[in-house]
Amino acid sequence: MTQWLEEQARVRERRGLVRSPLVRVANDRMVDLASNDYLGLATDARLAEAAREAIAKWGTGATSSRLVAGTTELHVELEHALAQLTGMDAALVFSSGYLANLGVTTALGGPGTLIVADEQCHASLIDGFRLSRSEVLNFRHNSVQDAADKLANRTQPRALIAVESIYSVGGDAAPLSELLALAEGHDAMLLVDEAHSLGVSGSGSKAGWGAIAGTRLAGHPNVIVTATLSKALGSQGGAVLGSLLLREHLVNRARSFVFDTALAPPAAAAALAAIGVITAEPWRAAAVHHNAAALATGLQAARGRPGTAVDRSLGAVQSIPMASAEAALAAARAAHEAGVRVGCFRPPSVPDGVSRLRLTARATLTSADIEQACAALRSILERTS
Amino acid sequence: MTQWLEEQARVRERRGLVRSPLVRVANDRMVDLASNDYLGLATDARLAEAAREAIAKWGTGATSSRLVAGTTELHVELEHALAQLTGMDAALVFSSGYLANLGVTTALGGPGTLIVADEQCHASLIDGFRLSRSEVLNFRHNSVQDAADKLANRTQPRALIAVESIYSVGGDAAPLSELLALAEGHDAMLLVDEAHSLGVSGSGSKAGWGAIAGTRLAGHPNVIVTATLSKALGSQGGAVLGSLLLREHLVNRARSFVFDTALAPPAAAAALAAIGVITAEPWRAAAVHHNAAALATGLQAARGRPGTAVDRSLGAVQSIPMASAEAALAAARAAHEAGVRVGCFRPPSVPDGVSRLRLTARATLTSADIEQACAALRSILERTS
Ligand SMILES: Cc1ncc(COP(=O)(O)O)c(C=O)c1O
Ligand SMILES: Cc1ncc(COP(=O)(O)O)c(C=O)c1O
Repeated sequence: MTQWLEEQARVRERRGLVRSPLVRVANDRMVDLASNDYLGLATDARLAEAAREAIAKWGTGATSSRLVAGTTELHVELEHALAQLTGMDAALVFSSGYLANLGVTTALGGPGTLIVADEQCHASLIDGFRLSRSEVLNFRHNSVQDAADKLANRTQPRALIAVESIYSVGGDAAPLSELLALAEGHDAMLLVDEAHSLGVSGSGSKAGWGAIAGTRLAGHPNVIVTATLSKALGSQGGAVLGSLLLREHLVNRARSFVFDTALAPPAAAAALAAIGVITAEPWRAAAVHHNAAALATGLQAARGRPGTAVDRSLGAVQSIPMASAEAALAAARAAHEAGVRVGCFRPPSVPDGVSRLRLTARATLTSADIEQACAALRSILERTS
Repeated sequence: MTQWLEEQARVRERRGLVRSPLVRVANDRMVDLASNDYLGLATDARLAEAAREAIAKWGTGATSSRLVAGTTELHVELEHALAQLTGMDAALVFSSGYLANLGVTTALGGPGTLIVADEQCHASLIDGFRLSRSEVLNFRHNSVQDAADKLANRTQPRALIAVESIYSVGGDAAPLSELLALAEGHDAMLLVDEAHSLGVSGSGSKAGWGAIAGTRLAGHPNVIVTATLSKALGSQGGAVLGSLLLREHLVNRARSFVFDTALAPPAAAAALAAIGVITAEPWRAAAVHHNAAALATGLQAARGRPGTAVDRSLGAVQSIPMASAEAALAAARAAHEAGVRVGCFRPPSVPDGVSRLRLTARATLTSADIEQACAALRSILERTS
């Protein structure tokens, strides 16, 4: 095994694909365009206070799985708040978004279920598809027509269409209402991963409620939503939202629910407090949209050159394709030296094989932050072009 | 799909296998023989204080994956402390024990790896085996001979033997040194899940350091350890421990590491504080062993009758096989009414198909607690026999 590990390490080295985590120090004053703390809530005083209270009341850990003794009143309250925010009938909280995606896909999949999935679906969904032993057909990114073709001749009694409302790496949005119509026509379920839109999508008084709330999808019998508590909600954990019947099915059948320790109370409390902030302060989601536009505009000068088109979307994520993995890494390092933290995505972490920088237009970035970041990135991108 | 969900619900109902979480209220004064808070640390003031400090310093969430910006100094410190406690060279922290098990098995598995696994391995290991697309051969529970037979004619260049040092449901221990000899003889890796022994196993000044620390297995090149931070460590999260080369491989290849938000800072801090308590207070692990013996003795009167033999072990878990799923549920409910919380395990959550009560001899149970619990359980078990 050791020899094989050494070989693998050499291959990575040769291809310029070695990763190692940069260690973050506290209060480093970097401009953060890398994290998924979209609304700035991970360091919000209200979330901190809620987490501290939960520690005092419930302890630092949940002590066992949800079905043994890990379900506290706090978990129930969080599930109600999540269902209410997204407009779904019921929610079930998992210890991570990853395990929520594994849980719902494995509990609904199997030989009787065809899974028709956008080719850019997240690793946690793909792992769930595999684990479920379902037949899986990928459709071209965001192509409703291709999804329809893939559903057309199914032999399985059940079908699941799987998408992300905003794609994690590319930052573009799925055509949700067309996909729902497709699901209805084929008696299929539409599974929507709201990881990058909960807290971010939506407008007016519902800004931040996600891509589902207030639309025809909310509470629709053909719709299932998954969410994570670890991004805009500034905490940790995940959830599946749908009917009460689905919830009961998952409680009994989702292995990543049954056989996993419940979400820690401070994380549950922080996420619950985050939902309160989201509904009370729609300006945060609006600020994300504003900052996304400012970031796109500020990087205009770097556009036009091949491989630096900035995809705009209703989400926070801006994606800058780069010529190579090495170029992406060099640019991210240069940005870091200029005091700007950006995401650097290389194979195998890019769904389309294209290395890129990934920028998140977080709500709490100031215009000075955005100017500094754009100036630094423009000059880096011009140098590497 | 809805129709199928309804059918599934009816089948569960008919078989007496419906689960639904009991909601725990704060300070309920129940005697807790159900949770995995083996050392009573989930409500320890030192863990609480460490978690609060981490919230103030780092926030309530890690904000992104470990490779983007989710690795804080705290995560690194926790990894060092875990490696030191277990006697392994390096550690990599995941957001749960479940995802740690998925990560290591998928990153080491594949067509070139034969997995030879104890038939009672935990769901998270089994899911990892499946996801890895390795050939998997199960050996009879704790049978080194059967494991040897399964390894004998392998065609794959690599092999992984997977066990738990203390089995989660049955509470018995794996024959680790024989298994290591077997692994050495076959140039295989031995993967040991320490979920239920970290904090509990070990003796003398190393009481609580786990089943690996201080043995020939610690730091051995053929040994890999996985751990969870959610049981004796009173928090949430998981880890894989092994060589630096293994760690680097996982950082690059374990999808449940790469594509998952990092462990929340308060959880990391609580686990780190727990390690401090474990090394400073070996009396806690000793109290588990003492209470396990007291519990076994106190249930003697209920022994002898078919199906209530209590398996004793060096761990905290006492397992009471029951005649049926209904009998197990009825007994657990009766215990609950008598103020005693016990685990109730029914198919599919029992590796051997036998429904049972599962009792944890936690360090902070008083002798009065144990007397109350034993009296209640004796009368319940006599009634249901
Ligand atoms: C689209 C998507 N789904 C699910 C997840 C998993 O969520 P978590 O990190 O909370 O496990 C992520 C990110 O990590 C994601 O980007
Ligand atoms: C043996 C074993 N391994 C792994 C796990 C998963 O750990 P966690 O609950 O921290 O995800 C558990 C329990 O949940 C377990 O019992």
